[in-house]
Amino acid sequence: MTLDEARARDAADPLRGFRQRFDLPEGVIYLDGNSLGALPKATAAAVADLTTRQWGERLIRSWNEGWIEAPLRIGDKIARLIGAAPGEVAVADSTSVNLFKLLTAALRANPDRRVILSEAGNFPTDLHIAEGVVAGIPGATLRVVPRDQLAEALDDKVAVLMLTHVHYKTAERFDMAAWTARAHEVGALALWDLSHSAGAVPADLNGANADLAVGCGYKYLNGGPGAPAYLFVAARHQAALVNPVSGWMGHAAPFDFADGYAPAPGIKRWLAGTPPVLSLAALEVGVDLMLEADPALIAAKSAALFDTFAAIGDALGLECVSPRDPAQRGSHISFRHPQAYPLCQALIAHGVIGDFRAPDILRLGLTPLYLGFEDVVRASAILADLLATGAYRDPQYAARHAVT
Amino acid sequence: MTLDEARARDAADPLRGFRQRFDLPEGVIYLDGNSLGALPKATAAAVADLTTRQWGERLIRSWNEGWIEAPLRIGDKIARLIGAAPGEVAVADSTSVNLFKLLTAALRANPDRRVILSEAGNFPTDLHIAEGVVAGIPGATLRVVPRDQLAEALDDKVAVLMLTHVHYKTAERFDMAAWTARAHEVGALALWDLSHSAGAVPADLNGANADLAVGCGYKYLNGGPGAPAYLFVAARHQAALVNPVSGWMGHAAPFDFADGYAPAPGIKRWLAGTPPVLSLAALEVGVDLMLEADPALIAAKSAALFDTFAAIGDALGLECVSPRDPAQRGSHISFRHPQAYPLCQALIAHGVIGDFRAPDILRLGLTPLYLGFEDVVRASAILADLLATGAYRDPQYAARHAVT
Repeated sequence: MTLDEARARDAADPLRGFRQRFDLPEGVIYLDGNSLGALPKATAAAVADLTTRQWGERLIRSWNEGWIEAPLRIGDKIARLIGAAPGEVAVADSTSVNLFKLLTAALRANPDRRVILSEAGNFPTDLHIAEGVVAGIPGATLRVVPRDQLAEALDDKVAVLMLTHVHYKTAERFDMAAWTARAHEVGALALWDLSHSAGAVPADLNGANADLAVGCGYKYLNGGPGAPAYLFVAARHQAALVNPVSGWMGHAAPFDFADGYAPAPGIKRWLAGTPPVLSLAALEVGVDLMLEADPALIAAKSAALFDTFAAIGDALGLECVSPRDPAQRGSHISFRHPQAYPLCQALIAHGVIGDFRAPDILRLGLTPLYLGFEDVVRASAILADLLATGAYRDPQYAARHAVT
Repeated sequence: MTLDEARARDAADPLRGFRQRFDLPEGVIYLDGNSLGALPKATAAAVADLTTRQWGERLIRSWNEGWIEAPLRIGDKIARLIGAAPGEVAVADSTSVNLFKLLTAALRANPDRRVILSEAGNFPTDLHIAEGVVAGIPGATLRVVPRDQLAEALDDKVAVLMLTHVHYKTAERFDMAAWTARAHEVGALALWDLSHSAGAVPADLNGANADLAVGCGYKYLNGGPGAPAYLFVAARHQAALVNPVSGWMGHAAPFDFADGYAPAPGIKRWLAGTPPVLSLAALEVGVDLMLEADPALIAAKSAALFDTFAAIGDALGLECVSPRDPAQRGSHISFRHPQAYPLCQALIAHGVIGDFRAPDILRLGLTPLYLGFEDVVRASAILADLLATGAYRDPQYAARHAVT
């Protein structure tokens, strides 16, 4: 694709207006929105209003003027992005803490089954948290197997099949409905980590009959660094599962200040402590913006950006480890390269920000709301130039050429 | 005290310069800084810089330009406020989640002891969390007794004595050193909740030989609504205690992306997920400001503000439930009144913001950094007027008189 062709594609892009809704730095092509989403233009004003007016002027009164409802209000908004119903999603804590809460609750509710099954190479915190959960439950074990052995390992000892919908490294995507059905066939629950899905690819929790899910707010949802995470509990499970981190914000009547814990009905019981309100304000802007975009257009543009990059990668002889079928992948493209680390550093030095994932992956995020075909063509021209000269292999290359 | 006398006291106050470091709304006397601290003037710019420059312009690069160190950097700063050493405090999660982590770890490390002992009427989330912790540990129990029965209940079955240093309702303060010593005599650990202490009254964890502690960032530390909380693990316990919420940020090498969890050495293992960076930025401003103030001056002014308010309360015939001895209390004053709720609402309607704690407590926070004697005299004049007429008993009174 030539630059002119790319510009023509961008001009015809029905999502093109969204780029102007973000503050993107000059001289940078940002291909890391799958790690930290870009800043929506509306966020600075929302954060300033939260700080100066809501906190500074209204002070404690703001708790009754929107803050206390924020975790479930924003949860209901995220629900619309992931195929959940109102009252099935809460914003709370981090993805790690939410995984801990849900996995612990699921194991406690089903004492006949003691196994959490997951995939080797799943995002580390998912495996780490599961390891911590089973360490605290007598007889419980974490079973971690390669993807191609999951079906075999999914037996009637499994309490929870914990999978990440889109793989953080390769972008491989599980068929959520099919794997949920397999879990249900053996009597297990399916828990999905949507961190690399929500806002990027179609995710339909209730369409897949999923049981539990978690996800993070700072990637495609553009909620800001370390934005609060979310969790989903299907309505049919809400009465039976109890939050082990039984903090006051999940109490049925937190302001009665009773000594005893009584879980709130519904999704509210999954809240624990007082939420970080400033960070919630930024998250809500990102979610609101994402809700304006047609998910079908996002998926189509993600596929087209990927295909453009993949074709250039092929021409450059790069090994693409991400699936070619759009239905089987997320919204980033990963190349395996023996010199992926210095290559990534050299790209960053030239303003193309992607990231390196050990040991040999160059990962480039394709965020349909604020990236265009021109970005892809420009980035790949820089990549081609680096590969052609090989100069990036010099350990001092990035430092000498850094423009950012 | 007359208004002129109060102004003279304020003029002679060595902390008077700090008031100008806060944005306080016109027409309000804010006596709820023990629930949500006021906004430091420097916060808006710090939050704007975090949003616009660090997130918007630097994007993912900011993780290596200060973000990743923030939880331990701010932890080390808070350590100086609470008598802890560098490397003993981390900022993470909420107070509730931190309590869950520490209590669970302490019980797991000591299988011969299965009891958490705490006080009836302790802050609810402390008791709720402890209830959740023991529910997940076979044989563990939560023993909750009135304050005057704690000594008797502290036996050799107790793993952790969990107390809140300053009581959220009455402001009663435990003698941290004496109760820690009592816990150690029977072989128990002492865990202190410093939420109403840090930044308000002297707290010297290592001076008291305390084992564990938690605390919140949004009260006297002025870190903003739902600011991240902190936890303390005495250096001597750090190797033996393992965070049950074993997330990637507490991993020894999080960016190696290994499947297995290996806890970081030191306090870092108590991190779990990705922290809310925007909220951390606001917290750091509040902590930095607090570090500028001499703790002895804060304690002395807190005592003097309290004595002023208590004397007026006596003259009005109000029942003060907070201790008269400054060494035995925190930095708020609480009056028991049968009509505390409508009285509190009427005060708020006249711009005096305190709060009501069920069933009959009017609680007024005395924050030495931004409150003066004139505030106390003005607030008590409004209180005296309301009590004299009794009009506040009319359920419509607050709505009719609301000015804020």
